[in-house]
Amino acid sequence: MTTSELLRRAQSAKRAMALADTQTKDRALLAMADALEADAPVILAANALDLEAAKGTVSAVMLDRLALDGQRVSAMADGVREVAALPDPVGRVLRREERPNGLIIEKTAVPMGVVAIIYESRPNVTSDAAALALKAGSACVLRCGKQAHRSAAAIVAALRRGLAAAGLPQDALGLVEDVTRQSAAELMTAAGLVDLLIPRGGTGLIRACVEGATVPVIETGTGICHIYVDRDADLDMALDIVENAKCSRPSVCNAAEVCLVHRDIAAGFLPRLAQRIVDQRAAHGLPPVELRLDDAASAAVAGTPVGPDDFDTEFLDYVLAVKVVDGVDEAARHIAAHSTGHSEAIVTADGGTARRFTALVDSAAVYWNASTRFTDGGVFGLGCEMGISTQRLHARGPMGLEELCTYKYVVTGTGQVR
Amino acid sequence: MTTSELLRRAQSAKRAMALADTQTKDRALLAMADALEADAPVILAANALDLEAAKGTVSAVMLDRLALDGQRVSAMADGVREVAALPDPVGRVLRREERPNGLIIEKTAVPMGVVAIIYESRPNVTSDAAALALKAGSACVLRCGKQAHRSAAAIVAALRRGLAAAGLPQDALGLVEDVTRQSAAELMTAAGLVDLLIPRGGTGLIRACVEGATVPVIETGTGICHIYVDRDADLDMALDIVENAKCSRPSVCNAAEVCLVHRDIAAGFLPRLAQRIVDQRAAHGLPPVELRLDDAASAAVAGTPVGPDDFDTEFLDYVLAVKVVDGVDEAARHIAAHSTGHSEAIVTADGGTARRFTALVDSAAVYWNASTRFTDGGVFGLGCEMGISTQRLHARGPMGLEELCTYKYVVTGTGQVR
Repeated sequence: MTTSELLRRAQSAKRAMALADTQTKDRALLAMADALEADAPVILAANALDLEAAKGTVSAVMLDRLALDGQRVSAMADGVREVAALPDPVGRVLRREERPNGLIIEKTAVPMGVVAIIYESRPNVTSDAAALALKAGSACVLRCGKQAHRSAAAIVAALRRGLAAAGLPQDALGLVEDVTRQSAAELMTAAGLVDLLIPRGGTGLIRACVEGATVPVIETGTGICHIYVDRDADLDMALDIVENAKCSRPSVCNAAEVCLVHRDIAAGFLPRLAQRIVDQRAAHGLPPVELRLDDAASAAVAGTPVGPDDFDTEFLDYVLAVKVVDGVDEAARHIAAHSTGHSEAIVTADGGTARRFTALVDSAAVYWNASTRFTDGGVFGLGCEMGISTQRLHARGPMGLEELCTYKYVVTGTGQVR
Repeated sequence: MTTSELLRRAQSAKRAMALADTQTKDRALLAMADALEADAPVILAANALDLEAAKGTVSAVMLDRLALDGQRVSAMADGVREVAALPDPVGRVLRREERPNGLIIEKTAVPMGVVAIIYESRPNVTSDAAALALKAGSACVLRCGKQAHRSAAAIVAALRRGLAAAGLPQDALGLVEDVTRQSAAELMTAAGLVDLLIPRGGTGLIRACVEGATVPVIETGTGICHIYVDRDADLDMALDIVENAKCSRPSVCNAAEVCLVHRDIAAGFLPRLAQRIVDQRAAHGLPPVELRLDDAASAAVAGTPVGPDDFDTEFLDYVLAVKVVDGVDEAARHIAAHSTGHSEAIVTADGGTARRFTALVDSAAVYWNASTRFTDGGVFGLGCEMGISTQRLHARGPMGLEELCTYKYVVTGTGQVR
C-alpha cells in the first residue's frame, strides 16, 4: 500500500477512534497485548530475519537493541496492558466557564487525529507508540527504520487484530511499507493527512523534520545535558550526580554530556572527578569516562583537549566534555548557546544560586541537586511517555497521554447571539 | 537596523524580561500607556502621513481601519492598562509532584522567549500585541504592514520609552524596519532567533508561514465558520443565530460564511432565511446578504448558484454560501472537508444530535444553539487575546496570556541519583 493511501485510511479511521469510549479502547489494548503474545513465534521469526540481514552492518549494541526473545515480546505486551490501565485523557474538561449570558464554555481534551511516528530500530517502540497514540484517541501511522521493518510488520499485524477484536477499525494503525527516505519526506509534507508528526531518533532525523516538515511536528529526544558544579556544591554529592548522569546509561537522551565547573573549585574538584569516573571505574572493571577538557580544566587534571565540536555533541558514550566557568551566569550562557533544551542540573548548597540557575536556564527540565537522568514520563508522574520534547510549543519534556491530546471549546447555549 | 540585528537584540533582552517580576512589568505597561497618550500628537502626525500615502490605493474600509484620532490613541493606551491589570501568567506552578524519593517536580509556566508577530494595517495591533507579549515575559518583535508603518514606528517609540522608564531593556520591543516580503521571510526562517512566530492576517500570509516557516508558528485568524440548522432546530432561534453570525460584523474571523440546512426543513426554512437576511435587511436600509445556493437550496429559494470555490472562501462580506445536507453526519463531513477549524455551530433542540455534532466536529470552538461570534478571548474568560489559533498544537481558539507561555519542569532534590 502506498504511504498516502495508508494516511487516507488512517484519516477515515480517526473519527471512530475519537468517538470510541474508554472501555472500547481499553478492550482493544488488552486484545492487542494478547495478540502480541499469541503471535510471538511469528514475531520472533520475522525478527530473526531482521537480525540476519543486519549482522555485519551494525554495531553489537544496535544488534542487541534490535533483538527480540519471548521475554521481550511479553514485556511489550505488558507495556500495552499498562497503557490500558492508565486514565483516558480524552474528554477531560480542562476548564468550565459559565458566562453571565448563560453560555457554558467547556475547554475539552480531544485527540490529535492522525499521529505519525518516525523511529529507528527498536521493535518495542512499535507497540509502545501505537498503544499510546490509540489510547489518546488518535489513529497512528508508524514509519520504522529499515533494520527492524520485518519485526515491526509482524507486530503491527498482531496489534491490528487486537483493534478489530474490539470493533475498532484496523486502519487506525498502519505501518509505512516504504522504508526509503522518500516515505519519511512524504510524512513530513502530508499536510491535511498528518495531524502530528513525532520523530524519534538521531539528530539528523530531527533536523530534517524541523527543517522540512510542513505538518505539525514535536521534536524529541536529542539531549546535550549539562551538570553545573557550583562553588558552593557539596562535592561528594556532585561526584555522585555527575557519575550517575554520565555513566548509569550513556546511550539515553537524559544522560549528561557536559560538566561545567566553577573556577574556584576546579583545582579541588576535577582531580576527584577524574579519580571517580576514570580511575576508580577502570579499577572496578567498569568502562572509564574519557574527559575532554577546556584549557582551564586541563590545568587541573589530565585528559584529552576539548575539540571544536565537543560542546555541541551528544556523545551517547562514556565521554564527558568539561569546561571551567566563572559562575552561574556564565554556566547559563554556555547552556543557552550549546544545550538542546532537554535537561540541565546545578549542584550547589546555595538556594539563591540555585534559584538563579533554574530561572536563567530555559530547558525542558532544570534540576537542583539531582541527576538529569530523572527526566522521564514515569518519574514525572505521567504514567508513560511517547518521547521527550525539546521544543517550546505544546509539550515540553516527557510527553504522556495528556500531551498527545489537543483541546477544543464546546459551547452550549440557548440561542445566544452577540 | 537590520532585521537580524533587531532579533539578536531581542534575544539579549529576553532574559531580563523573563526575570522581571510582575510589579516591574506592570509598571512598564502603565508607563507605556502614558507614553502613548503623551505622544498622541506625534503618533497622529505619523498616521496622517500613512493615510495620505494609502489614499487611492486601498478601500474606504481599509482607510478607516488605518485611521487614528485622539480617542483611538486613548483607547490603545487603555488597552495596555487593561493588560497590566491582568494576572501575571509567568511562574504559575501548573502541577506539583512530590516523588517517593523526595524529588519535588514543579511544572512551571515560563515565557516563550522572543515572540515575533507579523500583522497588517491596524495600528492598534501594535500596542495590543506588544503589551500581551511583554506581560507574558517575552521580548517582542513586530513586523507591521507597509501601510501602517509610520504609525507603528511612532507607537513603538512611545512604548519603548515606557519600558525604559521601568528599568526594562528597550530592545525587548522592536519594529522591523524593512516592510518588503523579504523581512517576513527572514522572520519565518530565523531559527534560534525567533522562539514563536504569530502571523495575524489574511490567508496568503498564514499559508506562507505554515509552508515556509522553520521557526515555531501559531496560525491564527482564518475563519470559514459554519452554522448547521438541524431538522429539530427552533427555526426562530436559527434565524437569529444565522443573522447574527453572518451580519453583526462580517469582516471578522468568527463570522459565519456557510449555512448547512437539513433537507427535511430546507423548503420551510430557506424562504424565511431569505426574507430575514435579504429582504427585511434591505427594507430596513441594512446591507442585504447575497445567498450562494447549492442545487437543493436553489429549489427552495432565489439566489446566486454556488461557485466552485464558494465553500472554501472566507468572504468577510455580506455573502453566505448555503448547502442542503442529509443530517448531522453529512454536515460534519462537509465541515471537515471545508472548514478552517475555527468555529462551527449547530442549531437543534435534540441533545443527542447536538452531542454528536460537538463530538464529530473538530474545530477550535463548537457551539450548540449559539452564534459563532462568541469565539473571543474576552468572552472565553481569558481576559484578552493575541489572536485565534486554528491549529491543534499548543493553543487552540483564543490565545490569551497563558497560551503565550510555555512551561518547564523545575526539579528540586537533595542529591538523588537514578
